[in-house]
Amino acid sequence: MKLIPQMLAAAAILIAPVAHADGLVDNVNGITLDEKGEIVRFNGIMFNREGIVTALLTPKQRRPKKPEWKLDMGGRLLMPGLIDAHGHVMGLGFQTLQLDLSGTRSLDEALKKIGDYAAANPTKWIMGRGWNQERWGLGRFPTAADLDRVVSDRPVWLERVDGHAGWANTRAMTLAGVSPSSKDPVGGRIERDAKGVPTGVFIDAAAALIQKAVPNATPRERNAAFLAAQESLLSVGVTATTDMGTTVDDWLTYRRMGDLGLMKFRIMSYAGGVDTALAVAGQGPTPWLYSDRLRMGGIKLYLDGALGSRGAWLKADYADAPGQKGLGFLSDDQLLNLMSRGTMDNFQLAIHAIGDRANNQALNAIEVVADSYKGDDRRWRIEHAQVIDPADLPRFGKLGVIASMQPTHQTSDRTMAEARLGPDRLKGAYAWRSILQNGGKLSFGSDFPVESPNPFAGWAAAFTRQDADMQPFGGWRPEEIVTREQAWAGFSIWAAYAGFAEQKIGRLAPGMRADFIILDRDPLLASPSELRGTRVLETWVNGERVWMPKK
Amino acid sequence: MKLIPQMLAAAAILIAPVAHADGLVDNVNGITLDEKGEIVRFNGIMFNREGIVTALLTPKQRRPKKPEWKLDMGGRLLMPGLIDAHGHVMGLGFQTLQLDLSGTRSLDEALKKIGDYAAANPTKWIMGRGWNQERWGLGRFPTAADLDRVVSDRPVWLERVDGHAGWANTRAMTLAGVSPSSKDPVGGRIERDAKGVPTGVFIDAAAALIQKAVPNATPRERNAAFLAAQESLLSVGVTATTDMGTTVDDWLTYRRMGDLGLMKFRIMSYAGGVDTALAVAGQGPTPWLYSDRLRMGGIKLYLDGALGSRGAWLKADYADAPGQKGLGFLSDDQLLNLMSRGTMDNFQLAIHAIGDRANNQALNAIEVVADSYKGDDRRWRIEHAQVIDPADLPRFGKLGVIASMQPTHQTSDRTMAEARLGPDRLKGAYAWRSILQNGGKLSFGSDFPVESPNPFAGWAAAFTRQDADMQPFGGWRPEEIVTREQAWAGFSIWAAYAGFAEQKIGRLAPGMRADFIILDRDPLLASPSELRGTRVLETWVNGERVWMPKK
Repeated sequence: MKLIPQMLAAAAILIAPVAHADGLVDNVNGITLDEKGEIVRFNGIMFNREGIVTALLTPKQRRPKKPEWKLDMGGRLLMPGLIDAHGHVMGLGFQTLQLDLSGTRSLDEALKKIGDYAAANPTKWIMGRGWNQERWGLGRFPTAADLDRVVSDRPVWLERVDGHAGWANTRAMTLAGVSPSSKDPVGGRIERDAKGVPTGVFIDAAAALIQKAVPNATPRERNAAFLAAQESLLSVGVTATTDMGTTVDDWLTYRRMGDLGLMKFRIMSYAGGVDTALAVAGQGPTPWLYSDRLRMGGIKLYLDGALGSRGAWLKADYADAPGQKGLGFLSDDQLLNLMSRGTMDNFQLAIHAIGDRANNQALNAIEVVADSYKGDDRRWRIEHAQVIDPADLPRFGKLGVIASMQPTHQTSDRTMAEARLGPDRLKGAYAWRSILQNGGKLSFGSDFPVESPNPFAGWAAAFTRQDADMQPFGGWRPEEIVTREQAWAGFSIWAAYAGFAEQKIGRLAPGMRADFIILDRDPLLASPSELRGTRVLETWVNGERVWMPKK
Repeated sequence: MKLIPQMLAAAAILIAPVAHADGLVDNVNGITLDEKGEIVRFNGIMFNREGIVTALLTPKQRRPKKPEWKLDMGGRLLMPGLIDAHGHVMGLGFQTLQLDLSGTRSLDEALKKIGDYAAANPTKWIMGRGWNQERWGLGRFPTAADLDRVVSDRPVWLERVDGHAGWANTRAMTLAGVSPSSKDPVGGRIERDAKGVPTGVFIDAAAALIQKAVPNATPRERNAAFLAAQESLLSVGVTATTDMGTTVDDWLTYRRMGDLGLMKFRIMSYAGGVDTALAVAGQGPTPWLYSDRLRMGGIKLYLDGALGSRGAWLKADYADAPGQKGLGFLSDDQLLNLMSRGTMDNFQLAIHAIGDRANNQALNAIEVVADSYKGDDRRWRIEHAQVIDPADLPRFGKLGVIASMQPTHQTSDRTMAEARLGPDRLKGAYAWRSILQNGGKLSFGSDFPVESPNPFAGWAAAFTRQDADMQPFGGWRPEEIVTREQAWAGFSIWAAYAGFAEQKIGRLAPGMRADFIILDRDPLLASPSELRGTRVLETWVNGERVWMPKK
């Protein structure tokens, strides 16, 4: 007769409890926030085989005599794994597999890199992203003619750094059937020369004109991208992330990885639309799957584009483009209809809104829909909430809205935002502290792969409003700085709250998941530059060491 | 400090094994096949909390003194849960939610039923299936004009009993944009009058012309359909089934049900095409999920239509339609390409082939592809294998092909098959015994919802070649009868083998899953009529009672 663990477990209920089934990671410089955001210090942490923390130990507390296993960390810093409240897992994965132009400082440097990549990669399409004509100081968008100089025999398609525009060569435009007679789609714009001939850059919805000609990623490529994203996140100490805009194919990839035990970090998934949420999760959020590693709990809706490409929907004209106010994607009625459908099935709503008009539209809709769900714990989210009309700020508090913001967007966008908005409208731009002071809730993320997924960069930006070069002196509009502890909360307990996961992750305490990181320095004592340079030595999820630097 | 079962399990490894963690179902008239198909009898069965059988007990064997729990079955018959080797889970579910015309014996009876259903159901579309103009003795296909007499204000769309044709009213054709100028698609035919005007019936691929206008089922409806199918299968003693042609939406439904613990039976899933298999499972079959309740292990390909609608692809003309040979869906090259792609990723191939030409094409392709995988355990399947050129029969044995056949198709199709094929070609039709005698492998299913999912009907048909009315006397072409035990094997151990599940289900023995049924009679002693009338009293899956008749 076979004996299996479950039978033995039944027998064991008769036995006195034994403490030594816990593991002990001892001799750490342990820090965590508590549920109120206060700092708690500890010296050892115990957790069980399910990956649940059973105790935080102070130096004086007695250790179990014979722990099942024990690790001495030599006094290293241990803190809870960090959480990104707004990222794109598969986007990050594909980015690491594709040509990365995010470091380029000029068009010529980018063209050289594109030519080299094309020579080294015999793929059907040359795919990449990360270009930024602002950073190049080009003063114009790049063109297909620029690209043709280095690759003309194969199609090239390169997304802008913010994902809100794409740059094609002539071969890609030909394959996609783009011609001077192609019309601008609703919510998008084809850049053209004086004669109306497309010049190679496609804004927002117009990008689909090229994108539809790109072959779909194979499941093999998807698996590889997932694993690349996972490596990237774990290496910078991110143990849980929000996935904003999960597609059915993304979801099937996560399930494949989860089924095979290859999913090591946690994903709070927001479907890329109502239909996807219903197709995947049906009549409401999925349960937490794979020991709390995956859940589809909400729906992302998009109200406008980005500021850089002038797609963000503003109340008044762009300061640097009179007559343009950006693009609203949905009518008020369409938005209300989508929100009603999702909310009725208990999905959380996460609404992308960048311009002040889009944020105003989101707040209006939340006000209407929330009225039907009084007393419910709905946690309405606005993603980015980048430019807010000061008149709208108090509504975040009144409606209990979570502003899901990205500190590194502020430091990257600073000069661009000044140009787009002019001085008067900056008052409600990247207004982290104002959100808190108005009673709203904050959560922080990176919007990877738009920005680096490294949360220490975001953490430093949030309490300095300075970039990696410490610019500008004193911080950009420093009245919107939050404290070092609030910045940490944004990437931990507040990000967990924003994903209905605050009972599981974000801090270390008995009953919480044992997700933690070992660092080479103390982020509470490090200077902003030092904080940005933090090196992760070990990443643990669910009481298991899932990442260490390669030797 | 919290104590959780896993910790206790670790402690328990030090303790002597205890037998009483098993459950005992005692005092049964137990029968099962062994792996060779020999009958084994027992009197009690023990299984553990994981749902794994730990012992079959004879009357004289000593019982544990204090079993954790014990059930006395009062001498009732207990046998392994039966397995359907070819069914359509969601199709069965939707059928039970839709209008069922399968019992109708005349056009007038069907029209009355349709009118009544439309009056009672305020749905946008009237959907149903199960009609059979052969059974009605109509001598022609029904028409839109027939339907318009009872429903003209709303669209009506009714699938034929074999799923290979559909019947629309005028409103449905209007909404779908079908007109006299609509062309027959590849692999399909629009029935027309002498002037070329569509008359309302759409054969095979032509059905898509109407189907595309039907609103998709909502996730709510899908969940309901799944639960209806589950109830239906468990009630007739089917504890595991093959799902032939799983779509992404089907899969997402199964995952929702599995995630919530609502999936009680087992599904061996075959994706409805290579792309679906790759999208869902990626680089190869999924693992067994939910305690061996779900796995996508293979891919279904379709080579032709059905005999009733003259869509089956024959080597020579239909006996009752000179000049027509039916429709081949794929060229040899297309088939080889799809098989190569699926096989490379270790998916099992299950190829739908009904006509002798389609079966010949399938065998040709298997011969070519198998050559690249010598020594591999690939278990090539041909689904239906209804009409085989006797010259092709030995190739089943030579290539180790599994003929996945449906005994009740034979009894339902008998007179139609005689008309379609004429006397000479019947020699290789529904040739179960010939398959075995030629060294091929068999598995049996019902093709539900085309036929009833009740496996006792198929079991009886397989060793009698008679229908429920005991017709024809002596059985139709009785030389193709298999034994009562072989018929049982077809619905149990052979069906498990066909799904790579023979180490888990299909028979009862230590180490196998505790899937069993309690019956009101002994199927080994029952007359064929009695066997068809078998009532299931209890259905157990994984050691858990999951179904009993409602009181």
